[in-house]
Amino acid sequence: MNKRILLAAAAALALPLPALAQTAPLDPAALRDAALRDDIAWDITEGLTTEVGQRLAATEAEARAREWGARKLKALGFQNVRIETFKMPLWVRGEEKAEVLGASAQKLTITALGNSGTTGPKGVEGEIVYFPTIADLQMAPAGSLKGKIAFVSHSMTATQDGSQYGAFGAARRSGPSTAAAKGAVAILIRSIGTDYHRNPHTGVTNWPKDVKPIAAAALAVPDSEQLERLLKRGPVRMKLLITPEFKGEAESGNVIGEVPGSDPDAGIVLVGGHLDSWDLGTGAIDDATGVAITTAAAKRIMDAGQPRRTIRVVWFGAEEVGGFGGEAYAKAHGGERHVFASESDFGADRIWKFTVNLPESAASLSDKLAVALGPLGISRGRDLAGGGTDVEPILRGKVATVALAQSGLRYFDYHHTPDDTLDKVDPVQLRQNVAAWTATLAIVANAAEEIGPVEKTGRE
Amino acid sequence: MNKRILLAAAAALALPLPALAQTAPLDPAALRDAALRDDIAWDITEGLTTEVGQRLAATEAEARAREWGARKLKALGFQNVRIETFKMPLWVRGEEKAEVLGASAQKLTITALGNSGTTGPKGVEGEIVYFPTIADLQMAPAGSLKGKIAFVSHSMTATQDGSQYGAFGAARRSGPSTAAAKGAVAILIRSIGTDYHRNPHTGVTNWPKDVKPIAAAALAVPDSEQLERLLKRGPVRMKLLITPEFKGEAESGNVIGEVPGSDPDAGIVLVGGHLDSWDLGTGAIDDATGVAITTAAAKRIMDAGQPRRTIRVVWFGAEEVGGFGGEAYAKAHGGERHVFASESDFGADRIWKFTVNLPESAASLSDKLAVALGPLGISRGRDLAGGGTDVEPILRGKVATVALAQSGLRYFDYHHTPDDTLDKVDPVQLRQNVAAWTATLAIVANAAEEIGPVEKTGRE
Repeated sequence: MNKRILLAAAAALALPLPALAQTAPLDPAALRDAALRDDIAWDITEGLTTEVGQRLAATEAEARAREWGARKLKALGFQNVRIETFKMPLWVRGEEKAEVLGASAQKLTITALGNSGTTGPKGVEGEIVYFPTIADLQMAPAGSLKGKIAFVSHSMTATQDGSQYGAFGAARRSGPSTAAAKGAVAILIRSIGTDYHRNPHTGVTNWPKDVKPIAAAALAVPDSEQLERLLKRGPVRMKLLITPEFKGEAESGNVIGEVPGSDPDAGIVLVGGHLDSWDLGTGAIDDATGVAITTAAAKRIMDAGQPRRTIRVVWFGAEEVGGFGGEAYAKAHGGERHVFASESDFGADRIWKFTVNLPESAASLSDKLAVALGPLGISRGRDLAGGGTDVEPILRGKVATVALAQSGLRYFDYHHTPDDTLDKVDPVQLRQNVAAWTATLAIVANAAEEIGPVEKTGRE
Repeated sequence: MNKRILLAAAAALALPLPALAQTAPLDPAALRDAALRDDIAWDITEGLTTEVGQRLAATEAEARAREWGARKLKALGFQNVRIETFKMPLWVRGEEKAEVLGASAQKLTITALGNSGTTGPKGVEGEIVYFPTIADLQMAPAGSLKGKIAFVSHSMTATQDGSQYGAFGAARRSGPSTAAAKGAVAILIRSIGTDYHRNPHTGVTNWPKDVKPIAAAALAVPDSEQLERLLKRGPVRMKLLITPEFKGEAESGNVIGEVPGSDPDAGIVLVGGHLDSWDLGTGAIDDATGVAITTAAAKRIMDAGQPRRTIRVVWFGAEEVGGFGGEAYAKAHGGERHVFASESDFGADRIWKFTVNLPESAASLSDKLAVALGPLGISRGRDLAGGGTDVEPILRGKVATVALAQSGLRYFDYHHTPDDTLDKVDPVQLRQNVAAWTATLAIVANAAEEIGPVEKTGRE
């Protein structure tokens, strides 16, 4: 029997002393309300983005961020703090210039996609072939792009659930390999974003083994619309200089800390976010706030009393460039008994919905979450919860999860751009996130219910 | 007696036919309402920013913009269309990199101020000396910045009347020369802007003859706040590479077109905006919309009937870098009888106020303007109207003016940044601008009143 139940029982027997019940350790409502005054998450977010700044996977800056993270977790009182390194290919940005040639000569603003090939130091010139959507590019005849530069647009709209990232993001994820297979010398895509600033959105693109990478870059949204206007007037030739490089194997790593539980047999509750960021901004909303929110919530539980289950906080490395940290963690720790895993990786705007993927034995937790999260303006969604890139490898083992869905209405204005900086974090909304995560951890880490495997894995 | 008065008299005699009065040529109200459906200003703004793009003073791009402008004015039916060239010093941007050194090594986003000196190709390193305001810098002891990099911040706030640009802009205009005089090797200023994007705001700085220019650059607002946070933690050393160059004398020019008036003795009504832009954006709100609005208004008058006074539209060259176009115009045309001059150079958001500087003989025009502009949500202000940089040299000759004040609440989010692009122009507000200018021109160009010299010149 855990402490919380003992105390709840004590409180029930002591009706004249409601103050005791309200301050009972791991009472989700009390912890939630106290977390609305949290400063820990802001402190982590501000410190990491200021003292380290950008922290591209496998670079010296990411290594500094790991040291920073380990120091911070120790200072906060976490146990078993360690850095677990792994090797991965290092990709770094080079020059990136794009120029319209001819009568309307002008520069356009671009940034290389992660894993982009290179134009070589002399660049490439070619005629632009315009595709309004990725589907148009897919339907282009084989060989029809030989010597050309493909340009793919889309109509992504800001949505609260962020679902258009999945739908329109294909232009970035698979557009380059599709264009390369049809003979293109390079590809430009409209940034997968919802803003109108001259700050293009990077992000990984993927190459099947049989496709030779070409230079692939995103145009800032205003530049993408400029190119569309020029194309309406007639053919456009461009010169591109895009020279990123793969630098071979380099070291990345995960930073781990724990709040040890009282019942080693009850399994591990895994939470976290990713420590690495893209190189353009300082990775404030992607994902300093994710590590900050989950760490602050775990710290608040730690300070309130020992939970039944061990809470393990992981600051994953190398998420952006291919989820290397999550895979490395699963390889190292997949054999341990994880009963729950969830991450925060969608900024720090207000959480508005939660979804669950729980086994029948722990179905009651969903109602407890609804009660605890309702006062924060968070309602229960019907779909099956999935996880982010970092925890997916663990979730694949039929591990239970709860997804706390942040508003995505602003997220893709800044995501993967130079604009992902501290000023985009709203301290009030950040605290609401910490409150929701604290209440969730109080319920899940302390549940008397057995949390066994789920029937099937949800999709993020 | 001019046509409008004849027609008004005819209308007064023909009360059963109010439709005639409503469609009388140069009826300000009818012209105003028709202009709310204007497409001319959008067409000019879209065309110039798309087909030419950036058009830094005295560059090849600005020359293309002049050709574009002359073609457009001719196509619209303006008379006496010509390009009047002049010589001026050409300043061009070079490399611009800023790096924090040491334990928090990271790059910050900067852009050189216009007329900035150079660090030389090897760059400079130095300790940052922080000044919260320009006043703090001014109070620093002589020689106290020897070998250091000055950093000046400020607290500019968005205002409807844009007045904080004058107040806080001193950090940019005179901060560099003040820092240089005290021995600084370079200066960084917080961008004179109100946004939170990684797009720094350029703009000219001025050097007295006895001060040797140093490298001077603006930090993007998020980077400026980042540097302030780092300074709170301890001393900061930075490395700067800022290599703009003066390229000697080059050609700029003004583009001029006219709507000839019926009464050559009634004087010239001068309106316009500036054709050049900074090199970072496409100069949509600064100042493609200015030339577009004033040209569209003049065109609408032209199509409605010949005005009493000649309306001269000027697309001034080289405003941004020092007002060379306005000075060249005054030198060439100052001897002609200008009775009115006004320009649009504050974007294209909704006009909310008008102010006047009129002689006693034409004081009645102010009431007519109040009647014509009121339905557009424009109220009369009490202060004396001044003019923008381009028309100031003419206004100094005690020439009358009306200032149509646009809302500045968004303007300094984009001003002088890469973000000054077409998407920032709201077509509905643009039309309101055209309507206000059309009504104003209908009243001023056609006034039966003599418009003589004013008593004193207002300040912008």
